[in-house]
Amino acid sequence: MTNKPFSIDLTMPGVLLSHHDNHIRRTLTSMKGQFFDQAAYQVMLEREDSLLYEVYEIHRPEISGELLSGFSIVHPGKVGSEYFMTKGHFHSVLETAEIYYTLQGRGSMVMETPEGDWAVEELCKDRILYVPPRWAHRSINTGSEDLVMFFVYPGNAGHDYGTIERQGFRKLVVETDGQPQIIDNPRWTAPGDR
Amino acid sequence: MTNKPFSIDLTMPGVLLSHHDNHIRRTLTSMKGQFFDQAAYQVMLEREDSLLYEVYEIHRPEISGELLSGFSIVHPGKVGSEYFMTKGHFHSVLETAEIYYTLQGRGSMVMETPEGDWAVEELCKDRILYVPPRWAHRSINTGSEDLVMFFVYPGNAGHDYGTIERQGFRKLVVETDGQPQIIDNPRWTAPGDR
Repeated sequence: MTNKPFSIDLTMPGVLLSHHDNHIRRTLTSMKGQFFDQAAYQVMLEREDSLLYEVYEIHRPEISGELLSGFSIVHPGKVGSEYFMTKGHFHSVLETAEIYYTLQGRGSMVMETPEGDWAVEELCKDRILYVPPRWAHRSINTGSEDLVMFFVYPGNAGHDYGTIERQGFRKLVVETDGQPQIIDNPRWTAPGDR
Repeated sequence: MTNKPFSIDLTMPGVLLSHHDNHIRRTLTSMKGQFFDQAAYQVMLEREDSLLYEVYEIHRPEISGELLSGFSIVHPGKVGSEYFMTKGHFHSVLETAEIYYTLQGRGSMVMETPEGDWAVEELCKDRILYVPPRWAHRSINTGSEDLVMFFVYPGNAGHDYGTIERQGFRKLVVETDGQPQIIDNPRWTAPGDR
């Protein structure tokens, strides 16, 4: 890892980075228990362990003052009526923000705080989303092409995936009459009920 | 200032933000003493106090864990043979990084550390530039259209403009035979000579 300034080119469309340090590929199996319609999930998984999303990370020291960045690509598709989405996470250091710049596609960012606030913001090209400290976040592709975003967060933030894996998000985004709709998550588990 | 997630749209070209908290306009007068060719600077200033660059800031609390972001637009032009550029600065908290995403135009980022390292990285559309902690940075428009960049840095970074105002950068970017060229700054003042 260099300590000199460096540049990285993004080649659109297709989204090829001239450099990345890590490429994460998340398939259906890595999202076990996260989709609402478990029957549809099982049928789909038996056919193919489909690729849901990818993340290209640019590594830096994981300390305060540094910035971690990269690209996420959520592919189009649905499990039952629920759109393909990322695992979603809190930051381990709760008091850290994140910024997303959407480069391509359409989607939703579903967010919530430990205190019970929730928000869903629409994602589209050339829109910046600010996720304040304390807000868990999950990106969802509600469109028909790849949802591509550039993200930046503080080097010391860390990831807490476990909380969302256990309790889910309070809200889901599903397709109803061909349109994205925000619904309550019937499988949501209050932290006290775990 | 909200503590809920929020979105901001960028309308290209022309670069209109759907929301910003502060709009900074830097003209020739604010760059007194920074351009190499002082005679050309004076002639130009007597004609018009030209607009060199603009910054649209999105405000957040200036604390660790938060992210400050916005857009900078460096207009095309030259003072003598030296391209229009930003004031340039160190972060007050030296151990803080910055990320630039170039959306339009062509340019150079001139950078240096207090220890004497220097670097010049080329800026072009869809290129990400990582400025590590400790590196002062100045963006320069070497092209014929606006240089537009989205930037993100840690909330607690702060700005130290004074050091660069006193000593300048070690390197300049000037036009030679129609091409950008990196040269030593003959007016550069070593910190000990201030």
